[in-house]
Amino acid sequence: MKDWLRFSVAFWHTFRGTGADPFGAPTKAWPWEDGTNSVAMAKTRMRAHFEFITKLGVERWCFHDRDIAPDGKTLAESNANLDEIIELAAELQKGTKILPLWGTAQLFMHPRYMHGAATSSELGAYVYAAAQVKKAMEVTHYLGGENFVFWGGREGYQTLLNTDMKRELDHLARFLQAAVDWKKKIGFNGTLLIEPKPQEPTKHQYDWDAATTLSFLQKYGLSGEFKLNIECNHATLSGHSCHHELETARINGLLGNIDANTGDPQIGWDTDQFLTDIGEATLIMLSVIRNEGLAPGGFNFDAKLRRESTDVTDMFIAHISGMDTLARGLRNAAKLIEDGTLDELIRKRYESFDSEIGSQIEKGKADFATLEKKAMEWGEPSVASGKQELAEMIFQSAL
Amino acid sequence: MKDWLRFSVAFWHTFRGTGADPFGAPTKAWPWEDGTNSVAMAKTRMRAHFEFITKLGVERWCFHDRDIAPDGKTLAESNANLDEIIELAAELQKGTKILPLWGTAQLFMHPRYMHGAATSSELGAYVYAAAQVKKAMEVTHYLGGENFVFWGGREGYQTLLNTDMKRELDHLARFLQAAVDWKKKIGFNGTLLIEPKPQEPTKHQYDWDAATTLSFLQKYGLSGEFKLNIECNHATLSGHSCHHELETARINGLLGNIDANTGDPQIGWDTDQFLTDIGEATLIMLSVIRNEGLAPGGFNFDAKLRRESTDVTDMFIAHISGMDTLARGLRNAAKLIEDGTLDELIRKRYESFDSEIGSQIEKGKADFATLEKKAMEWGEPSVASGKQELAEMIFQSAL
Amino acid sequence: MKDWLRFSVAFWHTFRGTGADPFGAPTKAWPWEDGTNSVAMAKTRMRAHFEFITKLGVERWCFHDRDIAPDGKTLAESNANLDEIIELAAELQKGTKILPLWGTAQLFMHPRYMHGAATSSELGAYVYAAAQVKKAMEVTHYLGGENFVFWGGREGYQTLLNTDMKRELDHLARFLQAAVDWKKKIGFNGTLLIEPKPQEPTKHQYDWDAATTLSFLQKYGLSGEFKLNIECNHATLSGHSCHHELETARINGLLGNIDANTGDPQIGWDTDQFLTDIGEATLIMLSVIRNEGLAPGGFNFDAKLRRESTDVTDMFIAHISGMDTLARGLRNAAKLIEDGTLDELIRKRYESFDSEIGSQIEKGKADFATLEKKAMEWGEPSVASGKQELAEMIFQSAL
Amino acid sequence: MKDWLRFSVAFWHTFRGTGADPFGAPTKAWPWEDGTNSVAMAKTRMRAHFEFITKLGVERWCFHDRDIAPDGKTLAESNANLDEIIELAAELQKGTKILPLWGTAQLFMHPRYMHGAATSSELGAYVYAAAQVKKAMEVTHYLGGENFVFWGGREGYQTLLNTDMKRELDHLARFLQAAVDWKKKIGFNGTLLIEPKPQEPTKHQYDWDAATTLSFLQKYGLSGEFKLNIECNHATLSGHSCHHELETARINGLLGNIDANTGDPQIGWDTDQFLTDIGEATLIMLSVIRNEGLAPGGFNFDAKLRRESTDVTDMFIAHISGMDTLARGLRNAAKLIEDGTLDELIRKRYESFDSEIGSQIEKGKADFATLEKKAMEWGEPSVASGKQELAEMIFQSAL
Repeated sequence: MKDWLRFSVAFWHTFRGTGADPFGAPTKAWPWEDGTNSVAMAKTRMRAHFEFITKLGVERWCFHDRDIAPDGKTLAESNANLDEIIELAAELQKGTKILPLWGTAQLFMHPRYMHGAATSSELGAYVYAAAQVKKAMEVTHYLGGENFVFWGGREGYQTLLNTDMKRELDHLARFLQAAVDWKKKIGFNGTLLIEPKPQEPTKHQYDWDAATTLSFLQKYGLSGEFKLNIECNHATLSGHSCHHELETARINGLLGNIDANTGDPQIGWDTDQFLTDIGEATLIMLSVIRNEGLAPGGFNFDAKLRRESTDVTDMFIAHISGMDTLARGLRNAAKLIEDGTLDELIRKRYESFDSEIGSQIEKGKADFATLEKKAMEWGEPSVASGKQELAEMIFQSAL
Repeated sequence: MKDWLRFSVAFWHTFRGTGADPFGAPTKAWPWEDGTNSVAMAKTRMRAHFEFITKLGVERWCFHDRDIAPDGKTLAESNANLDEIIELAAELQKGTKILPLWGTAQLFMHPRYMHGAATSSELGAYVYAAAQVKKAMEVTHYLGGENFVFWGGREGYQTLLNTDMKRELDHLARFLQAAVDWKKKIGFNGTLLIEPKPQEPTKHQYDWDAATTLSFLQKYGLSGEFKLNIECNHATLSGHSCHHELETARINGLLGNIDANTGDPQIGWDTDQFLTDIGEATLIMLSVIRNEGLAPGGFNFDAKLRRESTDVTDMFIAHISGMDTLARGLRNAAKLIEDGTLDELIRKRYESFDSEIGSQIEKGKADFATLEKKAMEWGEPSVASGKQELAEMIFQSAL
Repeated sequence: MKDWLRFSVAFWHTFRGTGADPFGAPTKAWPWEDGTNSVAMAKTRMRAHFEFITKLGVERWCFHDRDIAPDGKTLAESNANLDEIIELAAELQKGTKILPLWGTAQLFMHPRYMHGAATSSELGAYVYAAAQVKKAMEVTHYLGGENFVFWGGREGYQTLLNTDMKRELDHLARFLQAAVDWKKKIGFNGTLLIEPKPQEPTKHQYDWDAATTLSFLQKYGLSGEFKLNIECNHATLSGHSCHHELETARINGLLGNIDANTGDPQIGWDTDQFLTDIGEATLIMLSVIRNEGLAPGGFNFDAKLRRESTDVTDMFIAHISGMDTLARGLRNAAKLIEDGTLDELIRKRYESFDSEIGSQIEKGKADFATLEKKAMEWGEPSVASGKQELAEMIFQSAL
Repeated sequence: MKDWLRFSVAFWHTFRGTGADPFGAPTKAWPWEDGTNSVAMAKTRMRAHFEFITKLGVERWCFHDRDIAPDGKTLAESNANLDEIIELAAELQKGTKILPLWGTAQLFMHPRYMHGAATSSELGAYVYAAAQVKKAMEVTHYLGGENFVFWGGREGYQTLLNTDMKRELDHLARFLQAAVDWKKKIGFNGTLLIEPKPQEPTKHQYDWDAATTLSFLQKYGLSGEFKLNIECNHATLSGHSCHHELETARINGLLGNIDANTGDPQIGWDTDQFLTDIGEATLIMLSVIRNEGLAPGGFNFDAKLRRESTDVTDMFIAHISGMDTLARGLRNAAKLIEDGTLDELIRKRYESFDSEIGSQIEKGKADFATLEKKAMEWGEPSVASGKQELAEMIFQSAL
């Protein structure tokens, strides 16, 4: 089970989430916090983090550069702060099996990125972002991280009235190409992952969903260099089921990692809740098994306690609940696949294509004249029931 | 104005729309209808159609094969029915400037297509659809049609539980390639257009939006053979503004035609209303002007009278209102572009990239090491206001 | 279990659903249908219906007047047709325990109701609707129906630009009052139920959701005369969870019946699917148990086979799956309530109000001056964790 | 024009908005801010505010208690801070015509209100909120405020699994009744206003929309004591058009104030943008004119600069744009009403009810037996076209 469920704790939500929301001040008062954003506090927090994941029995963690170490007055100072914390993290990792599932650069909180990072209208922001990603990639490599993620929170627009969308997309492609080049230069063998999200904080984010991101990668010749980090709550915000996004990624060879969370179908923003729905979890694990696992990717709990959950025990409850849910999902999915009824139902639906003319079509050898002749010859085709209710019954009976 | 606004009447909505909806029976009782679906009735209807567009002063029309001529008992009989009506249409076109903006094949009404046409799980449906598209393309060519459209209303899935999405997408690509081949074979020089729609009638339609369709075309080597027919109501159903879809198509060289309608932002299905919003119309025309027009495409009124609008005069009112709206939009857009304030605001936002280092970035020659050096050297970048409220004020003042 | 799960088959979906949708023709070809809408066919169909529910082991059914018997040329003829079928139904009921859970009048299909029935702008439509409800109520009473439902599919508006909303709502209230009067006059002791739905087919339906309907009933002095028929898919279309609508109805003493179906959270129209989600079913049954059951109401399967499900066996599969799901939900809900952990968590959250000052507040005896004094005295209040993740874990562990 | 357009500046957005969002740090660096939350800073800010509204030529302002004056360590200290700022505001108002349109208490930012204020599970929070509203009402009265608003940002739930909805609603009613009593006690003659919002920050807010709020007021005997403050962005988030919410409030005698802003139809959270759409503004003003104005309410610009709009001039641009838009809306609406074509179209639609039988129906004197007799007598009713396209054309032609 461990090999299939490569869990990771997200440093930002669990250790930097304050409980603030657009209408409310912070609510969390963790005992280890001293109210400052100092390097000393960052160290205490990193120790608390390792204590937490050790107690939880999880072997991976994910981080943004600026969440683990405070911004300095200059980029050099920020880098120095980061180095200091990275040394501590490296030390804490030693003697354990704990490693970063992935690292990433936080290119959305600081006001300099208000118009985007790689897609900012300001050259200075682009340049700064490049320096920040360079460093974040280096420290991820140093810590033994297995992947590096790009979530373009501000790579999008608020209104087309003031936006040169084409130029911004061109810039984004240049930026990502430079990241690929740097990865190779420093010998980082981890996977580069793009995390689609449709909107929020921008009105439109360029990496809207899996298909949009694939479109972009192909257009700019970046295919083969990136995989996707599918987040369930981002999937549903884009109007797709999580399963749809996973399958779209999978059949295009792009399923690299899962941000295991969930949203509320009645809510139009990212709620980043811990997934507790067994049905959802089973669908997710069906995709994962068909993908032959996620490694070197895994399941990152990009999920946060509710603002009103203010006990330290809530941290444990939420993560344990999330892990149990996916473990139950794995069992159900394995049962479904071993049983084979659902797969057989699908196979049979398409078996008319396992014929000579079907095969010609699939090879691209059947032109319209040939097919018209067949249509005239065959007369009205018979079309079988789709058996959706049966498929749903088989699925539910496995839960 | 005429060159920019190449209007077209949609035969299906205006002459085959009955006013039925999922909870209601037909409401229209047009005086020329005799209650049958005979070839004779199809002829009367076609004459009424030409009378209507002539009175309206419109020079283009769009049609589905099965809307203009009734299904026969066999494909051969259906084709014969179609030929008979096409002859009449050719005759009615003669001596006028009236031509089809585009033709298309109706691959979604008949139960044989319930699982899709090109993506059906049934070989027989695929084959039948190929024969139908072949014929529809031929008659469109014969009538002097300028484009041919693919709206894959059933090319999608209802549930992934019974669907082999990869195999279906592969079939769709083969089908479209065969259509390209046939187009060349018969010497049809019109544009092939794909019309994205996110869902309805299927839960998920494969041509979800412009970006998804581009993704598909690239993956299967079909780029360059297709452009897009953007429908505003489909755009908003996919979570995008119509302007977003138009711009996405435009900057990728894919903006070929517009289905000029609108939805209701509070309604989750395709309402296909006539566009009457001046602001929307102005945004649309901004894209069209930047695209240097739509020809050989145009504006197809893929819009229907409300179910409760049952007077023949309502047909005229609705189309005149739609044309006036786009004409007002064109004037506003021209004014905005001639005035230049908005364009200048955009140009200035990005001017920091019109520098040496900006140019290096845009050419792909600036690696992360170079940029990091610059970031260190420059210190904190200054980031200007995005001036969204100003842009909105400039825009509104043109209405 | 039988007492809690008073299942009913919906005649319209199961025996009149054709598989047509806004983009597609009928797909069902049931062996007992002869392609006509005759009284003879109506009889054959009613026999098939009784055979179906008997085989299924269900004891209740629901019907619209016009679904079970065809429209005649006049109201008198329609009434005669209805009487003939009702006699057959009465006969088929005899010797079984089968009874109507409820009847209703179909006031939305016919073009005469295109602007509404009780809220039509046309006096003639209002009058006709009154006559139709009168008759439908009488035959429901005659057959031993336990409830009578009002779903105002067309009682709403398409645009406010042509609507006198106040006058329409006044008419609706008069109509419902007349229905109450008639119920009493004929000695029908069943419950009158209103079924909220936010929209579709209208842009805005007056019975938007449970709270809106309650608002209307109170304003027009109709409280006490009506309960609600909550449909899960209508709940989610209105932006609420099904559980929210059930609880809103319950705490206002209005939970009378459940239309047991489900929608798809990514779809913006009424899909009327059979419910198969165990979590949803458990939430529903929690409300039902707290309501001490639904009797004389029950669970009506207002759900239809997918358009692509065309086998007679699919009818059975779908209903069995729906019944199993609710039965599993009942077991889970009973387990949760017997266990008591969740209820205790809620009780404890509010226990600070089980104090003297809390009690004064709840009795309306604590004025702001008193409370200000307490606030000054007490200082900053302590506020406990909401324990949402714990509550979710407890809930999921019962599934 | 001034009498119809009683504009107000919202202190919170314009002077306390920082540009922070869930993914981003503050972006605004107004020259008068010193980075502290001191009383001295509060005074400087209040002076900047009066300078701003004076320059803008607006005569009204709206405030939350905690936005204009900082929280103290105790309630007494908070009240003292507030008194100090209120004295300054009173002084600044003197010699001008500037008055508060309304005041309100901020019961959602502080962690003590994380479970709600009047609906908190914690007695201490309820009591504290009562004290805070008491004081806020008193200072609003002191400053000559014309209304007092309740926006229950946290009065709702995050999950029903941990919530006693009935008890919470009972508490809310008690709280509002105590507010009514206090209003009378202190001789405040202003209007009490409830501001509906469907959700955000909570999953479900109890004052979901106008109809839900009316339902609550009626149930708890609070009708007549409250009117509604309709916010356009809240309307659209609840699935209604702004016009629908305004009309629902108006025909129930509840239209008291408008929070003049707008959202983005593709965005699922409160964007609080300045309204610039002329069509929307015209619909709003149609309701206002039919309401014979809003006084003593008005139009509060509950709208904020985009996060990326960081120039002081943007503040002016945004407000001027908002005022111009509503002024254009007023002119258009007046033109439409004076012209009378639209009103006449509506009047005619319903004129069949201006008959004897129509009048009997409207008086509640037509029972079902009478109506059935009429229906038999009259035969099939004729039903006229709804003329929606014509109504839309008339409306648009006025813009």
